[in-house]
Amino acid sequence: MSTERDHDRAFVRSFFTTPTAVEGEADSAKMLRRAAQLRGMEAPDVWVPDNEDATAPSMRDEGVENIVEVVTAHGEDVPAEIHPRVVWHRDSPATRYRGFQHMLEIADPEDGAGEQIDGFVIPEVGGIDDWKKADEFLTIVETEHGMEEGSLAMSVIVESGAAELAMGDLREEMGRPENNLERLFLLVDGEVDYTKDMRAMTPTGGLPPWAELRHNTSRAASAAGLIAIDGPYDDIRDVEGYHDRMEDNHAKGMLGIWALTPGQVVEANTAPLPPEEGYWLLDADGREVELRPEDGVATYDGDRIELEATDDGYRLGVGGDDEHLDDEDLSDAILDLVEYVPSLDDVVDSMAEFEAAKEAGKGAIAMTQAVTLRIDGIEVDIEADRMWDEATYQAASTPIALFKDVYENRPDQHEALEERYGASVVQRATAVGN
Amino acid sequence: MSTERDHDRAFVRSFFTTPTAVEGEADSAKMLRRAAQLRGMEAPDVWVPDNEDATAPSMRDEGVENIVEVVTAHGEDVPAEIHPRVVWHRDSPATRYRGFQHMLEIADPEDGAGEQIDGFVIPEVGGIDDWKKADEFLTIVETEHGMEEGSLAMSVIVESGAAELAMGDLREEMGRPENNLERLFLLVDGEVDYTKDMRAMTPTGGLPPWAELRHNTSRAASAAGLIAIDGPYDDIRDVEGYHDRMEDNHAKGMLGIWALTPGQVVEANTAPLPPEEGYWLLDADGREVELRPEDGVATYDGDRIELEATDDGYRLGVGGDDEHLDDEDLSDAILDLVEYVPSLDDVVDSMAEFEAAKEAGKGAIAMTQAVTLRIDGIEVDIEADRMWDEATYQAASTPIALFKDVYENRPDQHEALEERYGASVVQRATAVGN
Amino acid sequence: MSTERDHDRAFVRSFFTTPTAVEGEADSAKMLRRAAQLRGMEAPDVWVPDNEDATAPSMRDEGVENIVEVVTAHGEDVPAEIHPRVVWHRDSPATRYRGFQHMLEIADPEDGAGEQIDGFVIPEVGGIDDWKKADEFLTIVETEHGMEEGSLAMSVIVESGAAELAMGDLREEMGRPENNLERLFLLVDGEVDYTKDMRAMTPTGGLPPWAELRHNTSRAASAAGLIAIDGPYDDIRDVEGYHDRMEDNHAKGMLGIWALTPGQVVEANTAPLPPEEGYWLLDADGREVELRPEDGVATYDGDRIELEATDDGYRLGVGGDDEHLDDEDLSDAILDLVEYVPSLDDVVDSMAEFEAAKEAGKGAIAMTQAVTLRIDGIEVDIEADRMWDEATYQAASTPIALFKDVYENRPDQHEALEERYGASVVQRATAVGN
Repeated sequence: MSTERDHDRAFVRSFFTTPTAVEGEADSAKMLRRAAQLRGMEAPDVWVPDNEDATAPSMRDEGVENIVEVVTAHGEDVPAEIHPRVVWHRDSPATRYRGFQHMLEIADPEDGAGEQIDGFVIPEVGGIDDWKKADEFLTIVETEHGMEEGSLAMSVIVESGAAELAMGDLREEMGRPENNLERLFLLVDGEVDYTKDMRAMTPTGGLPPWAELRHNTSRAASAAGLIAIDGPYDDIRDVEGYHDRMEDNHAKGMLGIWALTPGQVVEANTAPLPPEEGYWLLDADGREVELRPEDGVATYDGDRIELEATDDGYRLGVGGDDEHLDDEDLSDAILDLVEYVPSLDDVVDSMAEFEAAKEAGKGAIAMTQAVTLRIDGIEVDIEADRMWDEATYQAASTPIALFKDVYENRPDQHEALEERYGASVVQRATAVGN
Repeated sequence: MSTERDHDRAFVRSFFTTPTAVEGEADSAKMLRRAAQLRGMEAPDVWVPDNEDATAPSMRDEGVENIVEVVTAHGEDVPAEIHPRVVWHRDSPATRYRGFQHMLEIADPEDGAGEQIDGFVIPEVGGIDDWKKADEFLTIVETEHGMEEGSLAMSVIVESGAAELAMGDLREEMGRPENNLERLFLLVDGEVDYTKDMRAMTPTGGLPPWAELRHNTSRAASAAGLIAIDGPYDDIRDVEGYHDRMEDNHAKGMLGIWALTPGQVVEANTAPLPPEEGYWLLDADGREVELRPEDGVATYDGDRIELEATDDGYRLGVGGDDEHLDDEDLSDAILDLVEYVPSLDDVVDSMAEFEAAKEAGKGAIAMTQAVTLRIDGIEVDIEADRMWDEATYQAASTPIALFKDVYENRPDQHEALEERYGASVVQRATAVGN
Repeated sequence: MSTERDHDRAFVRSFFTTPTAVEGEADSAKMLRRAAQLRGMEAPDVWVPDNEDATAPSMRDEGVENIVEVVTAHGEDVPAEIHPRVVWHRDSPATRYRGFQHMLEIADPEDGAGEQIDGFVIPEVGGIDDWKKADEFLTIVETEHGMEEGSLAMSVIVESGAAELAMGDLREEMGRPENNLERLFLLVDGEVDYTKDMRAMTPTGGLPPWAELRHNTSRAASAAGLIAIDGPYDDIRDVEGYHDRMEDNHAKGMLGIWALTPGQVVEANTAPLPPEEGYWLLDADGREVELRPEDGVATYDGDRIELEATDDGYRLGVGGDDEHLDDEDLSDAILDLVEYVPSLDDVVDSMAEFEAAKEAGKGAIAMTQAVTLRIDGIEVDIEADRMWDEATYQAASTPIALFKDVYENRPDQHEALEERYGASVVQRATAVGN
């Protein structure tokens, strides 16, 4: 038995929460109704009608009614999976019982919403035995409503040290006959409450980066066949910051992230996909600069790197250190400062080329990217070689596998993908790899 | 059952060790005697007469007598909790037995010190079963002396990979009927011996940062209701380095630190409390600069950021990259470079304001901080907004909870707190929050 | 019982893999044959005839024959321990059975290779029960061939989240009567496949740093008495990058690393040993610069630090910030920017001096390093003091213990060591410490 993921989606890029009932509006379900009608890149992979923190405590019973009403009306057409978040707390039996009652009501097939509900999100879990209590309630919900045991997915918000530790036990606990923990789907970090639980503090009140938590979440997902999702990024105007966070997450194997607005959903859906055009990264004395070639020439116009011709070669100045170089050395020195970021087209090309080489009995081939770099008016031609072997091929297959999962499960995004990459690249990307 | 902490102190800022017997002095207990008489900010939250590494092996029996004598004489008036460190080693039964004998003697109520001893610190623990051996000895000490089981606290020094792993099991082990591990109090990292146990080395012989160890210690404290303390900072003259380390620790939820001198105790007691005046942090091309406004104007006078007026606006230069900006864009660009560090007064204000807003049915309010920034003689007005919602409020409550814990348990520090913040701010801080 | 390491080597610096059978060569065992004849610094501590990833799947049965042949012919003279890597996969019983058959054949004493085989390397392990399957096969190999149970070492490649988690259980699992896991020897990270298993991705396709994995591997080695080894560094031309990685590993207690070429073996064997000459590290505005004194004067000739004499003292400029200093302050300011990296000679001196001081009843002594620093033509004399106490002594003993382990187990490297350090320093290094 391998740890194959048992759910429809093998990848989840975006986890989008919506308040279930807003006070003081003529229609308290307005936001739910609007979110249910998102399509394409604005529609998330997982949609979370949020009957916990996003909804005022006094509105949560009404929130349950709203979920039932809106999901009954629109659920069938929603391109996302639907996983409402209910109330729960490791330290409060009353909260847990209320969460149970809400799940029982939301999943009731007689009300019409039941069939559209893919699972539930349980916040504020503690040790593994607390996870089992939620699992048991889900089992009861299933049997009460005549559903198959384990058919409702369960996702958790990891927002306590206890829950972080519990993730280390999932692989062995998921096989035990007394539970249905195989229903587990997403492990979602909740850094705001986690910060409080850990009693951490920063001078400005900003959130700590919690690198170890994110690693441990990704590792648990890997070991137990689940999917790791990062928590909310509060500053919704800071698109660059959101992207930096996602890049950091991707390097940890955490490919999904919370989204608070349709704008963030678009970013979250797009960021894990390879870019439409390849580009170069230049290390300008510790600052990473993106260079996009025009007509094969990529220009750096900052002051952090200086280049000038001298009588017998070149002077290359980086952060106050000068090197005197001849032609060839200059090319090598510049090559050391750059890296190439391949486009989807590049990745597909390289994979196909490697597949062909492998079939012909070769174990490794060199892929070359050439560019002319212009610094202070001087042009330097460089060629970056990268050896592709089985390992490189396998590593490259993660973004392609994600691309295919998106293509298969999100027909409403085909148009956007084709607009971005062109139809032929999309076609080839769905065919390459295994 | 929640993981409420069972001890008097919910927070410990400072863990101060003192040699128990110094050779060649007329009074070998001189340092102990002096430490017992520290008061106010110089007195730690936890005082540790150190009968292990700080005391020569040949002096440790005398050290035990000194502890008994000094604690009998002064213990009642010591504002700190008193937790002597005894000898222990996971690999040496003889050392463990000696530590047991020392505890038996120190805790003996007939000698007079017993009642003043709050617990013991056990160094060099290994796997969880080794922790249980120490716990069992403490249980025997308690029953031999007619004390209640579990009344003596137990703190450990985490200085081996085995102990680091054991911390992951505390939450479940602490409930078992065969032990009294609920007595656990502090988890203290000991990076020097940990470095040796891990066989780590650095070119200069300096200690590695051990970020993961500190995270795991803080997480275990969170999961098991304990308190995490960082190890000693050897370079006692490097106050700035000690502060940097504490700031890093606080962002991990590790709010306490070892102190080797009364001077370090003052720093350790003060650093986790919010500052008396708010200030701004400026990101000057990767270097963080503190700007303290005078008459509402904060001046940056370094060369890492350049600002000059041009014909049609401004040129802003950061690390060799220039931006040309009009008035509004300049203000936005500067705003991106700064963050506000709130004072205790600011935090109390914001919490009170949010409490009032919440009562009035609002879920979020904007808190604004305004300042004029002067760079290269040019003044730029900026306004930083921060949304406060329930989560922000909860996160801000950690420093306030710590403040209240200090205020309640350390009457000897009231004067220093009032001198620092003013009596009215102190009064309001003890009243806000829940 | 302490966690003493049970194997011949307490330290392993280099883990060198060689393809077992190369297609299209007249002699498919050519690379094996050449690797078996490496001596001195080019010979690794652990040599791994690699019948997994380095060898084409179709060549692996022939690879087994080659191992038997080459190890029979040359094994006795190979200075390295010999641990072939066989095929294995947590998700494939067929692969595991094939690995078992290969081990049975390679270890057969009738073929002549058996006695020279020190153990096997098992890749792609999963949870701890998967490790036990490999252990059981090794036990069967041993009893089938009349060897003592547990006499074959077992090393694993950690290249899945499941295996990373399993490392946390080794300490307690290794004592159980149903297994012979005490045979465990090396924990080797395999970052390429780990990246795939974690589904991580980076823009350029480069490997993530995986700092937490390396920490957890080192910690498991510490807790269970094993040895931690980092995975392969692909860019074999990038010697500087390989060194940076090793320095980072050493600070985590991971003292060994994979080597893909004899050149990398030399680097891996040398890097954990102290340098032959001490030198200074200068923090030049965030960039670390190595300064090697000539005739007691170390010169910095970059532009990141500026120093000039003024009417009443000096102007010191670091990264755009100026300080105006008198003579003494200048010396202190420069001292804050530098650190000394001791040579093997320095380390031995300091240890011997501390041992003598300790015998004379002193607990701590100051070791001084003096140098003249020349910046922009101005010379500044500095003296760096470092307090040596028992803890410093113990920390310094790790490189010395490693040195002695090398000296004892690798007579073929004596000549290279004496060439590097001089015979007298080598002699004293083998005598100091305990």
